[in-house]
Amino acid sequence: MKPRMEEEYVQIDELPWKPFPDNFSKGGISWKLLHVSPEMGAWTAIFRCPAGSSFAPHIHNGPGEYFLTRGKADLRGGKTAGGDTAIAPGYGYESANARHDHTFFPVESEFYMTFLGPLTFINPDGSPIAVIGWEQAQNAWSA
Amino acid sequence: MKPRMEEEYVQIDELPWKPFPDNFSKGGISWKLLHVSPEMGAWTAIFRCPAGSSFAPHIHNGPGEYFLTRGKADLRGGKTAGGDTAIAPGYGYESANARHDHTFFPVESEFYMTFLGPLTFINPDGSPIAVIGWEQAQNAWSA
Amino acid sequence: MKPRMEEEYVQIDELPWKPFPDNFSKGGISWKLLHVSPEMGAWTAIFRCPAGSSFAPHIHNGPGEYFLTRGKADLRGGKTAGGDTAIAPGYGYESANARHDHTFFPVESEFYMTFLGPLTFINPDGSPIAVIGWEQAQNAWSA
Amino acid sequence: MKPRMEEEYVQIDELPWKPFPDNFSKGGISWKLLHVSPEMGAWTAIFRCPAGSSFAPHIHNGPGEYFLTRGKADLRGGKTAGGDTAIAPGYGYESANARHDHTFFPVESEFYMTFLGPLTFINPDGSPIAVIGWEQAQNAWSA
Repeated sequence: MKPRMEEEYVQIDELPWKPFPDNFSKGGISWKLLHVSPEMGAWTAIFRCPAGSSFAPHIHNGPGEYFLTRGKADLRGGKTAGGDTAIAPGYGYESANARHDHTFFPVESEFYMTFLGPLTFINPDGSPIAVIGWEQAQNAWSA
Repeated sequence: MKPRMEEEYVQIDELPWKPFPDNFSKGGISWKLLHVSPEMGAWTAIFRCPAGSSFAPHIHNGPGEYFLTRGKADLRGGKTAGGDTAIAPGYGYESANARHDHTFFPVESEFYMTFLGPLTFINPDGSPIAVIGWEQAQNAWSA
Repeated sequence: MKPRMEEEYVQIDELPWKPFPDNFSKGGISWKLLHVSPEMGAWTAIFRCPAGSSFAPHIHNGPGEYFLTRGKADLRGGKTAGGDTAIAPGYGYESANARHDHTFFPVESEFYMTFLGPLTFINPDGSPIAVIGWEQAQNAWSA
Repeated sequence: MKPRMEEEYVQIDELPWKPFPDNFSKGGISWKLLHVSPEMGAWTAIFRCPAGSSFAPHIHNGPGEYFLTRGKADLRGGKTAGGDTAIAPGYGYESANARHDHTFFPVESEFYMTFLGPLTFINPDGSPIAVIGWEQAQNAWSA
């Protein structure tokens, strides 16, 4: 007989900010990993993004949902390039296989995001560099 | 050939607060429905809970994750009763089949929550009154 | 640090057939529960359905996929009533919130099915009688 | 207002067998793609594997469940190497991030499998060669 999963609670302001790995971001992004779901392959985190910071190009292999609580984010190049520009408080749904070549924060920003499945960081031709899921996120956080 | 799902963006502060249905809450809770996922049966909303408000007893049939951005919430009776007491900024993971008999907001509070699958509102003996998933949420929001 | 989930293997022919609960079926349906996923709220089973057997009216609260390996099944009333009639070997995708008022097996049949989320067995007016998810399935199987 | 997803039915024996891509398998494996779920990033297929065939090394980025209806399969090297050896009729649950370096069919075999999220085909050092999800599966099938 398998038991129910335990509930979890995280006091977010007691968790330290840690630098998000340099190979996947620029400009000093930091994060707090809040939860991983090993069975589904889901994970949840908060990100703090200084003005001018960005994430490296990636594909969302499953759906992702963000809640921008502070600042401004250009997704998929931003609104002027056919993507979205989120302004806090903003919500976004990024579909399975959405490709994010340009994710840029023009001002200091903060967002909460849930991920189902991994992110694949990619080369300009779309080939995979690294597949980052719940387990790699947990490893990076614990390092 | 099935296409990718579209990305979505919601400017949260331009969306009106609407009263959350009275049969499932007390004390004037209002909400904004941000997203529904008809295929997975998932949905996402923000709730504003006045001091003294509460949700009716329910079971989370799938996992739910909340981000309490303002105020304080007693879940599963609160910490003194063996549950959790969230204080903003707080994150919680409510497991599939978690039973929430007492969800109470001692002060004005606000939280963002993602749901996989429905909530079943229940009688004291655990029997179901109503099963509220993405579709019922969408109907209630559009009413 | 959370570990990966364990892989599982079930030698299906060594598992006994057990009667599927009488309140949710008619005509002597038996089943083997193969797997439950407590975190996602998913579960997987094989059903053996004698000629003339049927399931009680229910709603699929999340998506379900079946592989009919033997026999014939009328879903949602069967093809002549606007539903589907599956003939082995047949595959079907039942969407989140699909309502199955009439699921009937005109000949001895067998199918494998994966469920995300619970089934809600319902009264003719659609009100819930019982919500059967991974945990209730596991309890029924172990009883 | 978003509608419910449509139900789907596939008459499996009317669907042709197609060769599974050579770069990801050896020995003449063929398949039928039965379903893709663009929102969740899930997909379902049946595989026919001649005696001596094998899949190239890969990681399951989300959980996968198989139902071996015919033959025999060595997973993760087979039972003697610490993995599993499935004998029809057999059921297996492959966890999120399970690594499958050796998937071998000693006799002609057939299995049905549901995938949540992509497979990442890998080099011996674990680095990704290709990430194959619902969309790539659909493209390969339609090619």
